[in-house]
Amino acid sequence: MDFSSDTSAPAHPKVLEALVAANDGNQPSYGNDAVTAQLRSALSRVLETDDFDVWLCASGTASNALALSCFCPPIGAILCHEEAHIARDERGAPEFFSGGGKLQLLGGDGAQIDETELRSALSRIDRGFVHETPAHVLSLTNLTESGTAYPVEQIRHYAALAKEADLTVHLDGARLANALVSTGASAAEMSWKAGVDVLCLGLTKTGAIGCEIIILFGAARAKFGALKARAKRSGHMPPKMRYLGAQALAMFEDDLWLKLAATANQRAREASNLLCKHPGTKLVHPVQGNEIFVRLDEDLVKRLKDAGATFYPWLDDSHRLVTSWATGADTIKRLASIVG
Amino acid sequence: MDFSSDTSAPAHPKVLEALVAANDGNQPSYGNDAVTAQLRSALSRVLETDDFDVWLCASGTASNALALSCFCPPIGAILCHEEAHIARDERGAPEFFSGGGKLQLLGGDGAQIDETELRSALSRIDRGFVHETPAHVLSLTNLTESGTAYPVEQIRHYAALAKEADLTVHLDGARLANALVSTGASAAEMSWKAGVDVLCLGLTKTGAIGCEIIILFGAARAKFGALKARAKRSGHMPPKMRYLGAQALAMFEDDLWLKLAATANQRAREASNLLCKHPGTKLVHPVQGNEIFVRLDEDLVKRLKDAGATFYPWLDDSHRLVTSWATGADTIKRLASIVG
Amino acid sequence: MDFSSDTSAPAHPKVLEALVAANDGNQPSYGNDAVTAQLRSALSRVLETDDFDVWLCASGTASNALALSCFCPPIGAILCHEEAHIARDERGAPEFFSGGGKLQLLGGDGAQIDETELRSALSRIDRGFVHETPAHVLSLTNLTESGTAYPVEQIRHYAALAKEADLTVHLDGARLANALVSTGASAAEMSWKAGVDVLCLGLTKTGAIGCEIIILFGAARAKFGALKARAKRSGHMPPKMRYLGAQALAMFEDDLWLKLAATANQRAREASNLLCKHPGTKLVHPVQGNEIFVRLDEDLVKRLKDAGATFYPWLDDSHRLVTSWATGADTIKRLASIVG
Amino acid sequence: MDFSSDTSAPAHPKVLEALVAANDGNQPSYGNDAVTAQLRSALSRVLETDDFDVWLCASGTASNALALSCFCPPIGAILCHEEAHIARDERGAPEFFSGGGKLQLLGGDGAQIDETELRSALSRIDRGFVHETPAHVLSLTNLTESGTAYPVEQIRHYAALAKEADLTVHLDGARLANALVSTGASAAEMSWKAGVDVLCLGLTKTGAIGCEIIILFGAARAKFGALKARAKRSGHMPPKMRYLGAQALAMFEDDLWLKLAATANQRAREASNLLCKHPGTKLVHPVQGNEIFVRLDEDLVKRLKDAGATFYPWLDDSHRLVTSWATGADTIKRLASIVG
Repeated sequence: MDFSSDTSAPAHPKVLEALVAANDGNQPSYGNDAVTAQLRSALSRVLETDDFDVWLCASGTASNALALSCFCPPIGAILCHEEAHIARDERGAPEFFSGGGKLQLLGGDGAQIDETELRSALSRIDRGFVHETPAHVLSLTNLTESGTAYPVEQIRHYAALAKEADLTVHLDGARLANALVSTGASAAEMSWKAGVDVLCLGLTKTGAIGCEIIILFGAARAKFGALKARAKRSGHMPPKMRYLGAQALAMFEDDLWLKLAATANQRAREASNLLCKHPGTKLVHPVQGNEIFVRLDEDLVKRLKDAGATFYPWLDDSHRLVTSWATGADTIKRLASIVG
Repeated sequence: MDFSSDTSAPAHPKVLEALVAANDGNQPSYGNDAVTAQLRSALSRVLETDDFDVWLCASGTASNALALSCFCPPIGAILCHEEAHIARDERGAPEFFSGGGKLQLLGGDGAQIDETELRSALSRIDRGFVHETPAHVLSLTNLTESGTAYPVEQIRHYAALAKEADLTVHLDGARLANALVSTGASAAEMSWKAGVDVLCLGLTKTGAIGCEIIILFGAARAKFGALKARAKRSGHMPPKMRYLGAQALAMFEDDLWLKLAATANQRAREASNLLCKHPGTKLVHPVQGNEIFVRLDEDLVKRLKDAGATFYPWLDDSHRLVTSWATGADTIKRLASIVG
Repeated sequence: MDFSSDTSAPAHPKVLEALVAANDGNQPSYGNDAVTAQLRSALSRVLETDDFDVWLCASGTASNALALSCFCPPIGAILCHEEAHIARDERGAPEFFSGGGKLQLLGGDGAQIDETELRSALSRIDRGFVHETPAHVLSLTNLTESGTAYPVEQIRHYAALAKEADLTVHLDGARLANALVSTGASAAEMSWKAGVDVLCLGLTKTGAIGCEIIILFGAARAKFGALKARAKRSGHMPPKMRYLGAQALAMFEDDLWLKLAATANQRAREASNLLCKHPGTKLVHPVQGNEIFVRLDEDLVKRLKDAGATFYPWLDDSHRLVTSWATGADTIKRLASIVG
Repeated sequence: MDFSSDTSAPAHPKVLEALVAANDGNQPSYGNDAVTAQLRSALSRVLETDDFDVWLCASGTASNALALSCFCPPIGAILCHEEAHIARDERGAPEFFSGGGKLQLLGGDGAQIDETELRSALSRIDRGFVHETPAHVLSLTNLTESGTAYPVEQIRHYAALAKEADLTVHLDGARLANALVSTGASAAEMSWKAGVDVLCLGLTKTGAIGCEIIILFGAARAKFGALKARAKRSGHMPPKMRYLGAQALAMFEDDLWLKLAATANQRAREASNLLCKHPGTKLVHPVQGNEIFVRLDEDLVKRLKDAGATFYPWLDDSHRLVTSWATGADTIKRLASIVG
């Protein structure tokens, strides 16, 4: 019963099959190969547009930091939630890649930015006032760090507010598939159609080995040259790129990524329902993806641990349990037997 | 007849098999998995010591820059050859990772640092003179960028000179296996036994998908915590690290990496010998690994191109041809038929 | 009636006299001059110790950022109040100088860090947990950004807590003289005797042209070489340093700096008392230095503006009024006539 | 007989008088004062244009690095002579301010860039080739680090070559006045009229306390906002800026700066002529400003040292002697008596 993280899961077998298939003969290095070309077509279908540029990374931290560094200069700031992964879990990667830019942290329930705080931050931007650091980017996360999902309308609304203030809109989609399944939105609806300029579409947590996609839409494409240079310079241009492209292709084929996310979400709902049957259990946030944030009484924690369940303590005496594509029905059954 | 680069080759099948084998069940993230633990044992054998710390990257640029940034402060410099990969082909990665450190470029034939230039540079270091940037690291490359191999004695000699001047010694071993096979030295002899403090042992060009190993020896291990933090911060701590470890394990098993390098070196010798049969061919550097730097007459270039051979023009009207583990005997036969 | 800032005041005439006196004949550059040597002696007296190293800057932002960058690595964080000058008014200077370090912001009334927040932040530091950025420095400000003064005991108490957690303690003393006069503490009591490792002692706001002193105490002196290199590298090693030293010497002679601060503080108290006579006036923070943060009714604001008074609107509909050594008794009289 | 540096000289008395005059009453901070406004007018006259923006620094290193950082991104390079001050004497300031940009060093006699090397470097720029770092700026120095002066035609020619390659042209004019006097060119002819986009006009070595002027011409003015933000962020926006402006005003009044440079140049010629009378003396570079680079026989060196002359040993067994506005006719007489 591993609920520690969706990154402790293995990759889906189709991903491995795709790697093996790609391992055939010589191919040009650095993204000039046939697999990467195919990926572009697949992405056109997934994103319902051709107006994009794409770069592949093996890590979500790299994907976010590279994307942000193209739009936030060293003398600028990034607006994000105080619980955002870029703020709390990336050891200062955005500051490093941007050359010392700032994160400006906003509050809000369920790791979703509060609209009043956002409006206040946007209204305070004064690019002519040299003493303070003006925001250049709004970074949103969906699925959020609290396992909640912004509906498309909220993304669109916040993106519109940000653009009035001349900000670029970044979406950290490390668990995008979980948010799409949860909200019923398409990748296009949740990204460029909602005003997102640069999307970090994660597949690692969904079921790849390590594959994160940076996508620049529309006007943001002007930064594609800079993005590639920054990728090279930060060691995120592995020569044999076909193996990154192959992972993504496998995930997009027959919408495998969405199917895997649907399974993970379903398991999280089942596990959450089971835990909530126990008196003394209290959800900290609604379960809208594959993460459960919950307060459990000591007795239940002990029983779970004794049964070998792995999960992490979280803020405020709560715990976090994460499911993945690999969380089996049997795991839920075992959980039921412990909780019941 | 692809002589464009050793990175255009596929990975060796055993590497793929290892990935598939590693893709079994859940494993802790971020390097706390069983595969990574196994790798440590394998490295102990390969390196003939336990006095090391290890980190895995998917890119050689990352590997070098991370390693260097632990030993060269922003106010310091790195001595390297003017043809070094870190100087010419990494888009400023050492400068980026070190926070603006400098490269101090030295000349020398065959991309090997000239001893007089090295001694002169070392003698000019004055850490108390605040206006100039003192060197903190000597970075050597073996196999060099010109396809020549430093003998172990030369590495040892230069390392000793560097240490007298209180420098850390870094070895860029993106093609280490080719140098080991060529010189007959062991990995231990070429690294810590010769005075190397930090080794970037590359396996990508040798036959992995993307796997580079940073190894800190002895006193340099004090920087291991900083190395991990810098890896995290630069997006070089992929959560599912077992797939990096698995590649390395496959390469070290039965010394596969050395066998693959031996094949590549052998093919380069054969190809070089064939090319040199043609009047008008002139080697620019001795072929001591899997790279050939050669001046070819126009006629031969045309014939090769017409036959579909791929290779790059290089400095001073020469050309570079690179072989890999995947360069078959058939390729050499075809080459013979064109040159002959 | 200029209450806009203490930096809009001219320098004290003695400072100019000292410059003219220093402008005599040739002197070695870069701090090797006789004036700088004299300054060291003067500082020994002022600080009641010889166990320090000293560097001079023309700007407080430079002074803070240089000091902090010696103790906070790029992979580390600085704890400070959310209103601190380094967080709000220096355009990301600490992030720039530290190579992308983070500021971790703490709350508390009157721009003084709340002890519970400090303890909580210190307890969360885990240098072995690679995902989060551990604090390396505690930065305090006295006089605070709200014009309140930490008593020496509080500085000592917080410094002790910080040191238990292995942090370096930095004191931003841009208005140190005002805090010393207000609390009755000596410079020694407020700095090294209280556990401060690195002091930025500002004289610009007190009455110099532009003179800020970075002082490293005790063990922190190990960073003096790095400090000088970073000063050079950031353009804060002006060749003709004697003119910085001369300013400081003039300010320390006969404790001129404390006398000037006493005048500024006195004027602030007088102005505050006058403003508070007006019904509808409400102090936002106690006046413990040369700054008044106050809510004024519209009528009084209008009368002040009509009379030519300059001062800035501040947070939450309040206003900030600042006095300086140059605020004359006549200014207070005019204020009385307007308020009365 | 101080020939150690022009920065060991005091400031000209008129500079001190100007400071005293500026020290009158309150003035807005951060460059919004009356003195700074006056300076703009004076510069219009000196530069024969109104199409510029201006920023003041106290140090030449800061002036160069700030200027360069506005035009060279972290992923770009700066072409300069291998002897340039920015390359050898600023402890990596350009790398720091640019966020890790590179210097690409070119050779040439007398610290003047060789045209063939320049053309070769320009022709190799390929902004689409992601592995190498393309040059974005050409940085020239006049007076050069070897005391020679580029004629205006050479500056114009090199600037034109650079602009064909889409580079920005920077002129390090730490000793601009000496070059202007030497070549007979005006400041306008040597800067914007010759194609210089950004000029660092130094007055410190000419006779100020510490005053360097960054001037953006024409299209380069688009970076003025970024320049100010970077100045603030690096601590080069001292609050009481009027004292920087006052120095510059004094230097430009009645062309004092050119008169002082004329004296310094004259003294250098006289000293050089005297030294060359001695058999065994050999000039390393022509004396075209206020610096003499010369090989002296041991006997003469001893006699000079015994007489108390100060000067530094330089490369290749030569010595550097520098004159300044304050080098008196008496000093030359004494020198004559020693050499004679």
